[in-house]
Amino acid sequence: MRAVVLRSHNGPESLVIEEVADPVPGPDEVLVDVRTAALNRADVMQTLGLYPDPRGLQPEIPGMEFSGTVSAVGTRVRMWNPGDAVMAIEAGGAYAERIAVHERQLMRVPASVGVADGAAIPEVFLTAWDALVVQGGLTSGRWALVHAGGSGVGTASIQIAKAIGARIAVTCSAGKVAACLALGADVAIDYGTQDFVAEIAAATGGAGPDVILDVISGDYVERNVKAVANQGRIIQVGLMGGGAANVNVAVLLTKRASIIGTTLRGRPIEQKAGLTQRFIREMLPLFDTGAMRPVIDSRYAFADIADAHRHMATNANTGKIMVDIA
Amino acid sequence: MRAVVLRSHNGPESLVIEEVADPVPGPDEVLVDVRTAALNRADVMQTLGLYPDPRGLQPEIPGMEFSGTVSAVGTRVRMWNPGDAVMAIEAGGAYAERIAVHERQLMRVPASVGVADGAAIPEVFLTAWDALVVQGGLTSGRWALVHAGGSGVGTASIQIAKAIGARIAVTCSAGKVAACLALGADVAIDYGTQDFVAEIAAATGGAGPDVILDVISGDYVERNVKAVANQGRIIQVGLMGGGAANVNVAVLLTKRASIIGTTLRGRPIEQKAGLTQRFIREMLPLFDTGAMRPVIDSRYAFADIADAHRHMATNANTGKIMVDIA
Repeated sequence: MRAVVLRSHNGPESLVIEEVADPVPGPDEVLVDVRTAALNRADVMQTLGLYPDPRGLQPEIPGMEFSGTVSAVGTRVRMWNPGDAVMAIEAGGAYAERIAVHERQLMRVPASVGVADGAAIPEVFLTAWDALVVQGGLTSGRWALVHAGGSGVGTASIQIAKAIGARIAVTCSAGKVAACLALGADVAIDYGTQDFVAEIAAATGGAGPDVILDVISGDYVERNVKAVANQGRIIQVGLMGGGAANVNVAVLLTKRASIIGTTLRGRPIEQKAGLTQRFIREMLPLFDTGAMRPVIDSRYAFADIADAHRHMATNANTGKIMVDIA
Repeated sequence: MRAVVLRSHNGPESLVIEEVADPVPGPDEVLVDVRTAALNRADVMQTLGLYPDPRGLQPEIPGMEFSGTVSAVGTRVRMWNPGDAVMAIEAGGAYAERIAVHERQLMRVPASVGVADGAAIPEVFLTAWDALVVQGGLTSGRWALVHAGGSGVGTASIQIAKAIGARIAVTCSAGKVAACLALGADVAIDYGTQDFVAEIAAATGGAGPDVILDVISGDYVERNVKAVANQGRIIQVGLMGGGAANVNVAVLLTKRASIIGTTLRGRPIEQKAGLTQRFIREMLPLFDTGAMRPVIDSRYAFADIADAHRHMATNANTGKIMVDIA
């Protein structure tokens, strides 16, 4: 099969397509013909050697989410049959024509979405839902604040919050304010000209947001602590602004607030499967009803995957950047 | 009644006993003749004007935990009768001969303990149990790391951890190592000569502790993040080392660890009552069986309460400092 193999870690130039051996599914695994892969920040970091696949497989094939069609199943597989349209997150290997994945990590592609667009769902909706709802405790009536509202995780967060009856403010660049509001954000804060601590305080009547989802870190962490509600939870899921942070612990104590670090990629398979199975029950039906939909920024041919990465590096996208593998 | 009234905030010298009006219990409240009050760091801070009773009652009577005998009950009280030996935490008012408390915040004094010593239980055992078990998720088999192992919260933590089948390491000064080990600590780390990050890593086979209870904060926070296990929880319950902290968010993400700020005092009454009722079911029976006991450092007469505060300021105590009100 053809697959991207990282032989160096120099950014987009390292994304070279080679002919490699097909993966062989284990007895509990499903072989998927990949239709589409979608890009994530972690892929960009991986091309720079900063965020390797924790499994350390060789050759190093990046790519963390995909949609496609089942082509073969292992001897113990009970949930899937050849021809099923599926999607999933995996720790790597999705920038390829075929991938082998444990059957309990796979989700059906909703009919309303279709196999070509399914890859825009798994990583960002699982990340946003796990951070906001599972770990953050977001419910109807509560407020979320999500940084990078125009990103894949941001656009998924807006839809999830609205679908469950919560309220949501996002931060974004001036050019994405209209798109975030159109998607359903109650408040969109231009981080270039507005102070999110003051804006979210005003929006929530002084109470602050119950949950903050932050892909930035750096000096946002201290501001998150200032902004969050009493007993609120701050979920740190990325490091776009750097890993060093100052925290005023006195405020954290007084508010009885939490700072929770999280990633999906490093989790053991049973935790990924558990999260996937719960997502299937609680979130996937909302794509069937049309309450949620993947937000797609752009599509690239497999041969142009380096250009797709260059586009992500500009931060100009609203929603997901897709690569059509087949 | 006689009560300490803070007319100034100059430390122990501000602890002046006056004659004030008796509290009048509301319909759901119980009037308690206080036998003993116990000291907490928060009381020391309050004498300096740094940590006021959030209710802002006047005159300002400090004191956050007590034991005593029920002398009268409000019209709707169902759980208590005059003569019952009770104990509780309250946001203030315990440095007094009488205190009025909501009936659902009161606990019976275990017969094995007796009313004179009951005041040594509520604040430190509730704080340690809430931090380690309720918020920290400590269970049998897991490891806790507790700073200030010789303190009231520290000595309660050691007993709770051992009683539920968990393992515990504490940090303490050299002079308290033997006492902490005698109480049941698996490991006692002399913070003056040993690096707790290295010591707890060695004790746990490199895995780190699942829960850290920290009353210090300051530069301990960054070291807690280094020390904690994957998916571990760091519970910050005090600020003896200062409120400013640095956090390496990259490590927090990779470990999927949490930093949780907490206090008991600022909680609304329904949360205090809820925690108390659960403590009654899960912890109080362990005093009846003798698995746990209050650790008492010293006793002072009511007239010498300023000396009791001066003793706490020296950090020389192992366990609770008691003031015999009656």
